[in-house]
Amino acid sequence: MKKFSLLFSAVLLCAQVKAQDSLAIRKMYDEALVNGQCYDNLRYLCKNIGQRISGSANAQKAVDWSKKLMDGYGFDKVYLQEVMVPHWVRGAKEEAAIIDGKTRIPVPIVALGMSIATPKEGITANVIEVKSIKELEGLGENVVKGKIVFFNRAFDPRFIETGMAYGTAGDQRFMGPAVAAKLGAAGVIVRSLTEIIDDYPHTGATLAAPGSKMIPAAAISTKAANKLSTMLKLRKFPAAKFYFKQNCELLPDVKSYNVIGEITGSENPNKFIIVGGHLDSWDLAEGAHDDGTGVMQSVEVLRIFKAVGYKPKNSVRAVFFMNEENGHKGGSKYAELAAQNKEQHIAAIETDEGGFTPRGFSFADVSKDFIKKVNDNFKSILEPYDVDKLTIGGAGTDIEPMKETLPGVVLIGFRPDSQRYFDLHHTAKDVFENVNKRELELGAAGMAAFIYLIDQHGL
Amino acid sequence: MKKFSLLFSAVLLCAQVKAQDSLAIRKMYDEALVNGQCYDNLRYLCKNIGQRISGSANAQKAVDWSKKLMDGYGFDKVYLQEVMVPHWVRGAKEEAAIIDGKTRIPVPIVALGMSIATPKEGITANVIEVKSIKELEGLGENVVKGKIVFFNRAFDPRFIETGMAYGTAGDQRFMGPAVAAKLGAAGVIVRSLTEIIDDYPHTGATLAAPGSKMIPAAAISTKAANKLSTMLKLRKFPAAKFYFKQNCELLPDVKSYNVIGEITGSENPNKFIIVGGHLDSWDLAEGAHDDGTGVMQSVEVLRIFKAVGYKPKNSVRAVFFMNEENGHKGGSKYAELAAQNKEQHIAAIETDEGGFTPRGFSFADVSKDFIKKVNDNFKSILEPYDVDKLTIGGAGTDIEPMKETLPGVVLIGFRPDSQRYFDLHHTAKDVFENVNKRELELGAAGMAAFIYLIDQHGL
Repeated sequence: MKKFSLLFSAVLLCAQVKAQDSLAIRKMYDEALVNGQCYDNLRYLCKNIGQRISGSANAQKAVDWSKKLMDGYGFDKVYLQEVMVPHWVRGAKEEAAIIDGKTRIPVPIVALGMSIATPKEGITANVIEVKSIKELEGLGENVVKGKIVFFNRAFDPRFIETGMAYGTAGDQRFMGPAVAAKLGAAGVIVRSLTEIIDDYPHTGATLAAPGSKMIPAAAISTKAANKLSTMLKLRKFPAAKFYFKQNCELLPDVKSYNVIGEITGSENPNKFIIVGGHLDSWDLAEGAHDDGTGVMQSVEVLRIFKAVGYKPKNSVRAVFFMNEENGHKGGSKYAELAAQNKEQHIAAIETDEGGFTPRGFSFADVSKDFIKKVNDNFKSILEPYDVDKLTIGGAGTDIEPMKETLPGVVLIGFRPDSQRYFDLHHTAKDVFENVNKRELELGAAGMAAFIYLIDQHGL
Repeated sequence: MKKFSLLFSAVLLCAQVKAQDSLAIRKMYDEALVNGQCYDNLRYLCKNIGQRISGSANAQKAVDWSKKLMDGYGFDKVYLQEVMVPHWVRGAKEEAAIIDGKTRIPVPIVALGMSIATPKEGITANVIEVKSIKELEGLGENVVKGKIVFFNRAFDPRFIETGMAYGTAGDQRFMGPAVAAKLGAAGVIVRSLTEIIDDYPHTGATLAAPGSKMIPAAAISTKAANKLSTMLKLRKFPAAKFYFKQNCELLPDVKSYNVIGEITGSENPNKFIIVGGHLDSWDLAEGAHDDGTGVMQSVEVLRIFKAVGYKPKNSVRAVFFMNEENGHKGGSKYAELAAQNKEQHIAAIETDEGGFTPRGFSFADVSKDFIKKVNDNFKSILEPYDVDKLTIGGAGTDIEPMKETLPGVVLIGFRPDSQRYFDLHHTAKDVFENVNKRELELGAAGMAAFIYLIDQHGL
């Protein structure tokens, strides 16, 4: 009888907790959808500041404004975290490219981030088209030397999540130029990392091979890539030449900052749940989806907590990381200092996949048992909000270094709908107008709800 | 022992069936994503035909082209189903509206579908703002007579699915003008049915009260509604006047058609699973999401089946319904003829919520046990494609009449992400450029997969 009544009490308590959680989460969604401020904040960041590549004056403006924004919300702590970042600049002069066959066809091009410039007169050379680094390596130095290597493996459209297509095509941009440099290529052009066929080239960082010299590397639009590939086929290899010119430069490192806002935990002030995105962006547009939406959602989570009067047990931080795009210095610095300060991190959520309708969260390096428990505990309460896909998967570049420095932290990626992200990613199209207000707000609310659940019940 | 081995065989068989299903569905997705034709077909419908309101020359063009398209795909049967439809026209002259206070402020306006024209000189009258039909009825004839009634209840942003906000605000447009007419109002203006605050008015059908005279009714943009409401508050009720003028007209009914393509079932030719959307659109744009995407996805389902060599056991039809927007005549006709021809319908799927990323399917008028069974049978196989939300809910206007004429049919609504639909719905913005290729294709593939599962395993 006693056992029965204990069981009954437990069931009743459990139901009460569920009901409380449901009410709290509903309140947070209402706040986000009725009084949401992340859309207006994003408009300011995009339209009044704009592009904010690491080391730029605009990046500093964004830091100053972000701190002011957080100060205005009256969080318990707002501070900057100093970090040295690379200062790569595209240069003021126009970038240009020409497919140089029987006729000369200008095509859209952008230098890859961290690349070096061409000589002033540009580079003109025969083109070798390859579909993979392996294929390039198979050709060897004799064939590659003095040529422009053209990486042209397209996105695989069969992946349901476009991030997988990016992941499997991305080595061409990340590593391709370094491999081509070792083989003596004169330069590299990469097919833009996107499925959409249009005239917008997509920039993004490329990595130097340690100890090896760099060669100029750029991305051409998918339309240009298709055109060049067709011409190479028609005119027989290697008759068509390619010309490109870029003026980019890596200047000395610059002092910059992560921007951090915190609501201090009422029970465990030295235990942390953080949510963050990156404040820097590429230089071609406003960095709206990449990652203006992420930072503005992160601060909105804290604003929602204050607005609904939720006082978390653990400290909750919004972190605007600096330099995700070309160096990851902000993420590394945060992880380093958190360890140094002996801050115990329970979980870190990164939002850097665009401000699209949320679908759920993915957990890095967890077991099947762990993800089952997370689903058992939280799925049903998140289901009415359509943010209940809780899976094993990637988390994010900025929080990745915490894995090393803060053992025990659970790294979580916010997962919005992925279909439109790579249409805009790293292009001149990544502007405020391509962000939908409700989609953005639902993401902020979803993260607030999930952090609330972690704060209340642990992971 | 025998029992055990039987059980074992059953488990093995079940696993084999699952594996076969998985392979078949993966093939269908690959076909949709690699060789998909619905995006190009939609471009043609939008750009080469354009708006296709019932009874118009363009609607007939759309019928002719759709039949040709289906003929080209070599389906087993392609035919038209004659149906008389209303022929409402907006009229060639410009529509205009002015908030007539101390200054005269022109605002964007569109006549509601099926409304009557104003007198040639327009209507000018004092305005009564109400938030609901009930509030209007409370005011009574003495107050309302001769006035322009302004329905201004906004979308409720707290709903996660925007269709719910449409459903709960929609009575103002559907029924509001008829109620105002009974109370002697001179005309009606309705706040556009959307959450977004912009300058685009949203049209849509309004219903006449049986036996009652109609009065001119129109929609103004949300920005105009906010402005008018503010002015009414500032200037004290009812000083601000409103002027509007429209030239619409209901002409005699016109002969039109549903367009139907069929793959005849290999085992049960007289049992049917159908998928459909509506071919007609409003007249303000291209009817891209409403419902060009739906019809082009429907025919794509059959094309995918043929392309991958899937021969359904039951007959599968793509149905392009005519006249969903202002009469539902095509849907009624289909239901009537199907019953008359004694065609047994297993299930009908309607796709009329835009061509956005799919989330799942909703089932009308089914029990909790039924939906549990559907989830048990199909959820896990749909999960990798993120189209696994299988819920009780609405199905769609065009298939609704089948409930009466075809007992036993399961009515199913295709449910894409709902966040952006009502930004565009019934406006000049509903154009091809606002459709994303992958989102559209994933919807077609999801419906092909689901119809395959129903065809193989029943419901």
